[in-house]
Amino acid sequence: MGTRQAIGLDVGGTKIAGGVVDERGRLLTELVEPTPEDSDAEAVSAVLLDLVARLRAEHPDVVAVGVGAAGIVQWPEGRMIWAPNNAYRDWPVREQLEAATGLPAVIDNDANVAALAEARLGARPYREMVLVTVGTGIGGGLVLGGQIYRGPTGRGAELGHIVLNPDGPECGCGNHGCFEAYASGTALTRMGREAAEDSPDGLIARLGAEDGEVTGKTVTAAALRGDPTATDLFGRLGRWLGVGIASLANIFEVEAVIVGGGLVSTGDLLLEPARRAAREFAYAPQAREATPILPAVFGGDAGMVGAALLALEDARIPVG
Amino acid sequence: MGTRQAIGLDVGGTKIAGGVVDERGRLLTELVEPTPEDSDAEAVSAVLLDLVARLRAEHPDVVAVGVGAAGIVQWPEGRMIWAPNNAYRDWPVREQLEAATGLPAVIDNDANVAALAEARLGARPYREMVLVTVGTGIGGGLVLGGQIYRGPTGRGAELGHIVLNPDGPECGCGNHGCFEAYASGTALTRMGREAAEDSPDGLIARLGAEDGEVTGKTVTAAALRGDPTATDLFGRLGRWLGVGIASLANIFEVEAVIVGGGLVSTGDLLLEPARRAAREFAYAPQAREATPILPAVFGGDAGMVGAALLALEDARIPVG
Repeated sequence: MGTRQAIGLDVGGTKIAGGVVDERGRLLTELVEPTPEDSDAEAVSAVLLDLVARLRAEHPDVVAVGVGAAGIVQWPEGRMIWAPNNAYRDWPVREQLEAATGLPAVIDNDANVAALAEARLGARPYREMVLVTVGTGIGGGLVLGGQIYRGPTGRGAELGHIVLNPDGPECGCGNHGCFEAYASGTALTRMGREAAEDSPDGLIARLGAEDGEVTGKTVTAAALRGDPTATDLFGRLGRWLGVGIASLANIFEVEAVIVGGGLVSTGDLLLEPARRAAREFAYAPQAREATPILPAVFGGDAGMVGAALLALEDARIPVG
Repeated sequence: MGTRQAIGLDVGGTKIAGGVVDERGRLLTELVEPTPEDSDAEAVSAVLLDLVARLRAEHPDVVAVGVGAAGIVQWPEGRMIWAPNNAYRDWPVREQLEAATGLPAVIDNDANVAALAEARLGARPYREMVLVTVGTGIGGGLVLGGQIYRGPTGRGAELGHIVLNPDGPECGCGNHGCFEAYASGTALTRMGREAAEDSPDGLIARLGAEDGEVTGKTVTAAALRGDPTATDLFGRLGRWLGVGIASLANIFEVEAVIVGGGLVSTGDLLLEPARRAAREFAYAPQAREATPILPAVFGGDAGMVGAALLALEDARIPVG
């Protein structure tokens, strides 16, 4: 027990990470490659197979391969249907990986596998949990009854695209007022640029001029220095995060909402206004307990660890 | 097969209906009583037991009792925790009914059991389905993997209280901008009154003056006569309905979204703008098929039929 190992691969828009992970979620080795410029199936496939070969050379006993990838993954076939930031379309990842490696493989959405990592090996085990990742976009993973909810063919749980205001700002997906359009790093960049335009002498504008442009990172830096405008923007971002979380907590009866992604490293700057708004918009608080909103335990490794865990849980793999 | 019968009871804010229903969903007898003015547990309980006794006198072979009730029901204990429009609180309905009748009983939220009726005996069987009922409020029921999703203790699936705009109008629940605040009969009443104030000579105002006040029914009557203001209000109501449905369809991968409740009798007046908005706000339409939005097959009977079906499906009942 606790000794089987799998390879977990995390395919993102800028980098592809691969690691060997054991059943306790320990990351034994890690390799990272940039996502190919031409991010089509052939180019990404070559990187995946290279990573698997190098990881197996070091850990020949791995029993399976798991992949978490941004985008819509056909389940259980493991076919990448579409991704917002990569060129691959309708790509039979699982079939290719199994044929090339001789190992059983599973492919799932990156936020789904990250949610599995948190549910199995987070602060405590969760049977009912929502994961919201706040990065460039908003990713969402759902664990219901101890299992990842992905809908019958993997097209469910697109939590970043619930609508928080149909007359709101344009989202990367083309719609308006999505959760992602209000509570992501992209939203923070947008708000930061507006603030810099309004106050050209403010700290956000000055830090932005040093960096060449204002981004979410500029706003974060300003907020960490105590700049009131930047702190106020985090208050607005966190409020929208809390409104989205409240909607999800009104639909799902979960033990916790876990917030992951790059921006959660700002801690209470983001989470306190989110908790306030989530309490404000909670339905029937006299009859339904408030859902705790907690930071993720896993950071950038969540995708790799979760993908490997999913591979190890998959029924087709012999128990060691 | 097809011959077992159960009593289905539907407890609403204004009336309590009871019927005998067979496994094919046929309603064999129906009785209706007004909800007692003092709608506490004792008063409502007396009505339920009286209805059960009268229905059993006619149909002594019923094998179970099912109740669908507005509000939050503790599952599987069948305890009514709280309801927005009734006075009962923390009422052990299932325990009382089983003790008094000697029959196995199940208690669930009214929209949950209505969703079961549509999933089992609607236009076709659905394993994955969302029901949205548009009446005074908005009720929601979810069928996932062929079963009602209610969360581990029955507090999930509060679909009427996802937030469509945190700065929106006040909802009956006390929050702002809920789905229910925008797309219910109450919302139609609010919009109709605003329209009557703006145009005191318009058809809505004139019909309202005849009735004593403007309600959603006034707006419906005006729209059915082709009044452009009323038709426009249905366009706005339907658009909000579609925005809420799009959010739900982005979370759940369902075969259909079924719209029930009193207002669906207006047909395309409500459903066409809802379909347009749901298409507009659907995530990744290139990779996810559009979810059909269809009117419910069951009307006012949905709660009774669904409650009886749930009772007949319940494992504790011997198969006849």
